[in-house]
Amino acid sequence: MGDTEAERAQKVRIGQDRFRVAVMDYWNRTCPFTGVVEPQLLRASHIIPWADCESDQERLNVHNGLLLSSLWDAAFDSGLVTFDDLGNAIASPSLGKSARLALALEKAPPLQLVDEQRSRLAWHRSEIWVAD
Amino acid sequence: MGDTEAERAQKVRIGQDRFRVAVMDYWNRTCPFTGVVEPQLLRASHIIPWADCESDQERLNVHNGLLLSSLWDAAFDSGLVTFDDLGNAIASPSLGKSARLALALEKAPPLQLVDEQRSRLAWHRSEIWVAD
Repeated sequence: MGDTEAERAQKVRIGQDRFRVAVMDYWNRTCPFTGVVEPQLLRASHIIPWADCESDQERLNVHNGLLLSSLWDAAFDSGLVTFDDLGNAIASPSLGKSARLALALEKAPPLQLVDEQRSRLAWHRSEIWVAD
Repeated sequence: MGDTEAERAQKVRIGQDRFRVAVMDYWNRTCPFTGVVEPQLLRASHIIPWADCESDQERLNVHNGLLLSSLWDAAFDSGLVTFDDLGNAIASPSLGKSARLALALEKAPPLQLVDEQRSRLAWHRSEIWVAD
């Protein structure tokens, strides 16, 4: 293996493929912000991250998922963007101008949400979103 | 661990953090296409993917890296975009209109390349780029 690989016992996540398929179907295989449809560019994001979910069901619950382009996923996952109850994107004050442009944040249409997503997004706003 | 986690022996990659630091420094901590500077949104992409590198040195060689926003990384990694010898982005014919807009592909400035990168990009064009 050389010096850049080793074998170690690691935790692996089971069911992620199933979660992705369910989230892809729920969101019509399209990122709601960019219209991107290429599966290679789409990520099934967890609203409440996998590691913070309290149960297996929660980890695989389609209402805990959003289908985002890879850039929106990175921004959402790191708390540089979140969403309010109306589905409007809220940027962290720390998100710079170039990133806002790359996300086309000003043009982002509101997400169509149901209450099962709103409650989880409330958690995301309080626990993940970078407020300063 | 519940039913969604298990422990397995897995290959781990050693030196990826060092590679990322070197690539971040080389490219001035900025994605050359989007101007994105948030580390959370930046990926140190391999031109020749880790798994295809023939040596440890090659895996960690800064000239085998590009610093890309997460969306450009996903597109480059999957071969939906590549670059010619002049550093101009070339889209796969299979890349859709929304993805081209999300990447702002038409506005992408040419990459400033050196020969150590050009030879690896030639490999990327022939082995990874999706030509149809």
